[in-house]
Amino acid sequence: MAKVSVMGAGSWGLGLAILLNNNGHDVKVWSVFPEEIKVLDKERENKKCLPGVHIPEKIEMTADTEYAVKGADVIVLAVASPYTRSTAKLFAPFVKEGQYVVNVGKGIEESTLMTLCQVVEEEIPAATVAVLSGPSHAEEVGRLIPTTCVIGTHKRKDAEYLQNIFMSDVFRVYISPDMLGICIGGALKNVIALAAGIADGLGYGDNTKAALITRGIAEISRLGTAMGANPSTFSGLSGIGDLIVTCASMHSRNRRAGILIGQGKTKDEAMEEVQMVVEGVFSAKAAFALAQKYNVEMPIVEQVNKVLFEDKKPAEAVKELMLRDKKMETGEWSE
Amino acid sequence: MAKVSVMGAGSWGLGLAILLNNNGHDVKVWSVFPEEIKVLDKERENKKCLPGVHIPEKIEMTADTEYAVKGADVIVLAVASPYTRSTAKLFAPFVKEGQYVVNVGKGIEESTLMTLCQVVEEEIPAATVAVLSGPSHAEEVGRLIPTTCVIGTHKRKDAEYLQNIFMSDVFRVYISPDMLGICIGGALKNVIALAAGIADGLGYGDNTKAALITRGIAEISRLGTAMGANPSTFSGLSGIGDLIVTCASMHSRNRRAGILIGQGKTKDEAMEEVQMVVEGVFSAKAAFALAQKYNVEMPIVEQVNKVLFEDKKPAEAVKELMLRDKKMETGEWSE
Repeated sequence: MAKVSVMGAGSWGLGLAILLNNNGHDVKVWSVFPEEIKVLDKERENKKCLPGVHIPEKIEMTADTEYAVKGADVIVLAVASPYTRSTAKLFAPFVKEGQYVVNVGKGIEESTLMTLCQVVEEEIPAATVAVLSGPSHAEEVGRLIPTTCVIGTHKRKDAEYLQNIFMSDVFRVYISPDMLGICIGGALKNVIALAAGIADGLGYGDNTKAALITRGIAEISRLGTAMGANPSTFSGLSGIGDLIVTCASMHSRNRRAGILIGQGKTKDEAMEEVQMVVEGVFSAKAAFALAQKYNVEMPIVEQVNKVLFEDKKPAEAVKELMLRDKKMETGEWSE
Repeated sequence: MAKVSVMGAGSWGLGLAILLNNNGHDVKVWSVFPEEIKVLDKERENKKCLPGVHIPEKIEMTADTEYAVKGADVIVLAVASPYTRSTAKLFAPFVKEGQYVVNVGKGIEESTLMTLCQVVEEEIPAATVAVLSGPSHAEEVGRLIPTTCVIGTHKRKDAEYLQNIFMSDVFRVYISPDMLGICIGGALKNVIALAAGIADGLGYGDNTKAALITRGIAEISRLGTAMGANPSTFSGLSGIGDLIVTCASMHSRNRRAGILIGQGKTKDEAMEEVQMVVEGVFSAKAAFALAQKYNVEMPIVEQVNKVLFEDKKPAEAVKELMLRDKKMETGEWSE
C-alpha cells in the first residue's frame, strides 16, 4: 500500500481521496486554507463541493505543506486550473526525485498557453509527472459508481505503477503514453461544454447537443494533432468520454454556466450564480489563441468566444454554425 | 425542387417528410398499410410515433407503391430494419436507373450479416443507393430543432446532390464516401444504447454511461475497420454522434428497453412495454456474429448478448466489464 497525499480539498480531490482510501492506501488531504482543513476534519463532509458524501476518519487532513509532501509516494494535484502553478510552486521545494505528481486539474494557462502538466513539469522538475483524466464526476466517484479513467505518463512503468494504485472494481484505469493529448482534451472539453449548455439554455434538443459534442471533439482533435498529440486519444475516455459526461450532467459547472448564458445571462452573472470556478471561461480564450497559433479551424470555440467576450447573441452563434459552407465529414472519394 | 417519396410512415419517415416539405420539395409519404395512410391523411398526425407534430397538408399520403415510386427523383427508405428487404423487394420493380434510394434505417440483417444498404443495393440494382445517418431524433427534427447528419454515397456528385436536397438552416448535412462505416455505426449503436440503458436501470450514473459510450464506439470502430470502413467515420456524426444522442435521450426505444432490463425485466417484457421495434435486440446477435467472423474483441456487445439471451444478471455483466485485465487505451510508449 502506498502513501498518497491529495493537494486540494475540492470535490475531485475528496472523491479521489475516498477512492484511494478504499483501495487501502494511506491518504492525506491538504489544503492551503487551514480553516477549511479544520472544518473538514470536524465535519467529515465538504458541504459546498461534495454534499452528502462522508469522508472516512482514516483520511488525515492537513494544511502543512511540508508534512503533506514529505514521504508521500504519490502526490495528487487537485486544485482548480488557475491555482495549478502557484500550488505546484508552493510544494515543489519538498518534492524529491522519484515522487509521483499526478495532475488531475484541467485547463490551459492563458498567459503561456501551456497545458497544466507542462506547468507542473516546469515547476517541479524533480517529480515524475502523470495525468489522470476521464469521465469522472467526483459526486459519483465518491458514491462508488462504476467509473473509468486513463492515466498518462512518459514511461510505461510509471503508468503501470499508478494504474495499480488507482484501479478498483468500481474504478477502471486504462494507461496511455499520450500525456499531451490527455491534457488538451481535458482542458478544451470545458469550452465545448459551455457551448452545449448554451444550446440547452436556448431550448434546443439532444440532436443539437450531440452535434456540438461530435463536431466539438473533431475540432479539439484537429488542434491536438497539430500540437503533436495522438489523434486516437480524442476518441478515448479523456477525450470524447469526458466531453460526453461534462455535457450530459448537471454536475458540470461549465454546462450549468452555459445554460444560464443561453437563457440570456452574461458570463459574469452566470459565474456568479454557479459559485464555483467555471474553467471553460478561462480556457475559451486560450483555446482560441491556440487555434490561431497552430492555424487550425475551430468554429465552435470561435463562436463561444464571441458569445462570452463580444456579447454575440447565442442563437446567432448557433445559426452561424449550422449555415457554414457545406462540408465533407471524413475521407474522400477515390474517383 | 425535387420530387421525393418517403417509404414508411413511422416517426423518422414523417420527420424527414416534414423537413423535405419545408425545403420546398414535392413530398409523398407511402405506407404498405392503406388503413394507416387513411388515418394519417385525415388526422395529419401520427399519434403513436410522432405525437403533437402536425403533418402539412401539402404532403401527399399514398399506399400505392407504383404511384409513390414512379417519377420520384429521390426515394427515402424509412422502415424498421426487419422490413428493409421486403419493402425494397416490393418497390424494386418500379425503380428506374438514375433514381436515388436513400436508406435511413439502421441495422444488420441477422441471416446474412449484411448492412441495410447492402440489402437495398442487392434488391434494387437499378437505384443509386445512399445512406443518411446521424444524431437525429425524429421528434426533434419534426419540431425544427437544429440537427446535423451525414450522407454517404459511392460517388461525390450523388452526395452533393442529396446534400442540397436535405440541407436547411436547421438541418446541416455533411457528406462522406464511407457508406459502410456509416451503416455499421448506425446498426451497432443500438446495441450499446441497450447497454447504456441497462446501466441507467441499475442506478449507475453519468460516469458509467460515458464509459460505455466511449468504449462502445471503440469496439464498433474496431469491427468496422476490420470490415473495411474508415476508422474516422466512427468519430463522426453517424458514429459517436448518433450513439451519444441514442444513449442520452428518452426518445430512444433501445435505451428505454435497456432501462427496463436493468430494472430486472426480461427482454420480452421490455419489448412488450416499449411497444415499438427495439432494433438493438435484433442487432445484438448480428453484432456478436460479426465480431466472431472478423475476430474482433467486443466485450460490451458480448455482455449485452449474455444479458439478453442467456439470462445473465446485468450487474454481473457490468462488474465483468470493469474488472477485465488491465489495458492500454491507445498508442504505445517508444522506450
